[in-house]
Amino acid sequence: MRSDETPFVPGGQFAIEGRHGGPLHGLSFVAKDLFDVAGHPTGGGNPDWQAPVPQRHAWAVETLLDAGATLVGKTVTDEISLGILGENAFDGTPPNPAAPGRVPGGSSSGSASAVASGLCDAALGTDTGGSVRVPSSFCGLYGIRPTWGRLDLRGMMSQAPSSDTTGWFARDPGVFARVSEVLLGETLPDELPDRLLLASDAFDLADPGVEAALQPMVERLATLVGPAATVTMAPPGLAAWARAQRTLQPWEAWLTFRDWIERDNPRFAFSVARNLVQGSAIPEGERQWAGLVRREARARMVRLLPPGTVLCLPTTPFPAPARGLPVSVQDDLRLRISALASHGGLSGVPQVNLPGATIDGLPIGLSILAGHGGDAGLAALARAVGAIE
Amino acid sequence: MRSDETPFVPGGQFAIEGRHGGPLHGLSFVAKDLFDVAGHPTGGGNPDWQAPVPQRHAWAVETLLDAGATLVGKTVTDEISLGILGENAFDGTPPNPAAPGRVPGGSSSGSASAVASGLCDAALGTDTGGSVRVPSSFCGLYGIRPTWGRLDLRGMMSQAPSSDTTGWFARDPGVFARVSEVLLGETLPDELPDRLLLASDAFDLADPGVEAALQPMVERLATLVGPAATVTMAPPGLAAWARAQRTLQPWEAWLTFRDWIERDNPRFAFSVARNLVQGSAIPEGERQWAGLVRREARARMVRLLPPGTVLCLPTTPFPAPARGLPVSVQDDLRLRISALASHGGLSGVPQVNLPGATIDGLPIGLSILAGHGGDAGLAALARAVGAIE
Repeated sequence: MRSDETPFVPGGQFAIEGRHGGPLHGLSFVAKDLFDVAGHPTGGGNPDWQAPVPQRHAWAVETLLDAGATLVGKTVTDEISLGILGENAFDGTPPNPAAPGRVPGGSSSGSASAVASGLCDAALGTDTGGSVRVPSSFCGLYGIRPTWGRLDLRGMMSQAPSSDTTGWFARDPGVFARVSEVLLGETLPDELPDRLLLASDAFDLADPGVEAALQPMVERLATLVGPAATVTMAPPGLAAWARAQRTLQPWEAWLTFRDWIERDNPRFAFSVARNLVQGSAIPEGERQWAGLVRREARARMVRLLPPGTVLCLPTTPFPAPARGLPVSVQDDLRLRISALASHGGLSGVPQVNLPGATIDGLPIGLSILAGHGGDAGLAALARAVGAIE
Repeated sequence: MRSDETPFVPGGQFAIEGRHGGPLHGLSFVAKDLFDVAGHPTGGGNPDWQAPVPQRHAWAVETLLDAGATLVGKTVTDEISLGILGENAFDGTPPNPAAPGRVPGGSSSGSASAVASGLCDAALGTDTGGSVRVPSSFCGLYGIRPTWGRLDLRGMMSQAPSSDTTGWFARDPGVFARVSEVLLGETLPDELPDRLLLASDAFDLADPGVEAALQPMVERLATLVGPAATVTMAPPGLAAWARAQRTLQPWEAWLTFRDWIERDNPRFAFSVARNLVQGSAIPEGERQWAGLVRREARARMVRLLPPGTVLCLPTTPFPAPARGLPVSVQDDLRLRISALASHGGLSGVPQVNLPGATIDGLPIGLSILAGHGGDAGLAALARAVGAIE
């Protein structure tokens, strides 16, 4: 393990200038080590992931460079994006400057860490089961998981294709809005959503104190959107949704990586290998059940979130945990995180994390969700909320 | 992974002189990196096995030094002794000079490699599920798994205590006999065993050609012991014995390592982690069945192998396979190896590998077994067979 704490992968600090005159000129960004950058290896967070050095940039990298932003490096990811806490036994654990001594969250750990540390303005991450949302919450950043299927994922290392998305981070709401316009390919609307829902089932699963800590953020939203009405996001229970996602995603991850594993017998931290082993053993009956739950979850979100409606919930059930916790303790934390994050991969709706709240000085995020395709409205709302502060 | 092929662990080449005037004076030996050597870390074949540097030598190391042999280094082992082929993703794969390009066999890979390469006269290894017998066969060496419970295992890293043994290797039958006398604490008898059995069920599971390749060795034994009578070693089938050992051993290995795994989430090659994950999930009913099979296997060996009787069988079902084979191919090889090796851990009887036979130029060993405590008789027979050549 690397002893130096840095968001960057070894050899991952370099600069590729953005196009002059683009809308993001003057901004800097980093890319998680799952994105191809021409001429630099895509490490994938694992020493045995030996892909050929890419000749082309990933779509998201190319798009930001074309818009004028300058790429300043590649950042640490949890191994092959399998992790939610941000600890990598090979590349090290990036620092969380907002919560020293605690994990940054993962798997887009280095991207969140670099932005939170002020080393760049924005960052590309990926979110399959929460990998942008969770580090956004833990590091106190704006972060988005866009509508599934909306962005071009060319050049981004896959994990579970039916859940994979490209997301991004920023500290500043204005920067977040500008980057969002470029990557969404859409001007943010002036008109804000006009109906606010609050997912009581999600708030109920958070630690005591989280609801109170997020209350001022909810009130700020209410001043822009209108008073919040309480709903149950997942009628069959968030436990059922989490179980379905924790069935579909590890199975797909196994399908994604099994040929490589078969060929190279790669090294993993125990918990990562266990995830793959258990994924490989999921029975078809379980997967079929999970597929039906996914259909229900998508339908539920369509019904719950017509245009103009946003739903808010805690992004994570607690702020960043300590680093280096025992495996079984991390298992419990991951389980609880998944209960608040699984709707993303299951339903495909967009979600933005809003920073600003803290518990005992540690950041904790409030998320806003919209129906499929409502990404720009969420980014506009995030910009408006940020302007209040 | 280390790119240089060497039997030694990093920093593992040094010399500790043996006591002058001892019976092994003038001989050199190495110790598998599971044995404590005072002042040198016991690496255990895994970078995250961070035990305190030992202050005392392991009993076996101390005993050989006391007898006058000089320790010349510590050798590569499969990770925490979980492996039978001898490929270590962290410490590298020691060369097999008798079968270039092929695995040395494991988990006592470096010890076998060092002796076969002529870097020392003898070597200490461990054998839980075949870790001395298999590399002896693949590298063409004399090697012994002694009667379980006979040697003092102090300072030797444990894997599955009810199967763990300390074993040793030598190229030369005379050296093998001298080292055996010291570690067994017993002068080898002049009188040889007088009854020879041949395990037809074991020969039947070997590759075509193995029986023919081993036939000259069997005939050589017969000239010393008398004509061979054919028996079935495992009446319920070697498959049942292998299944029992593959139930008891991974479960015990999980018990041995789970606290460390819980605390440190260590890195492993995928196949090693999978072994531990699957071990952790073995149901109690399976373990109970396996425990009964073990009782039957022990009783069978007591009945089959009274004093003066030796049983011979192929040590491995094939010579050393190629290096770097796909995981599923290695799984098949491991399964077949276990069918010919599981009687050791199950029954606790001693076994010596005799080199000398080859298939297509690759070594393959013939094993001789005796009843519990018959170790010295086996070593004496090995010396006598070696003297024929």
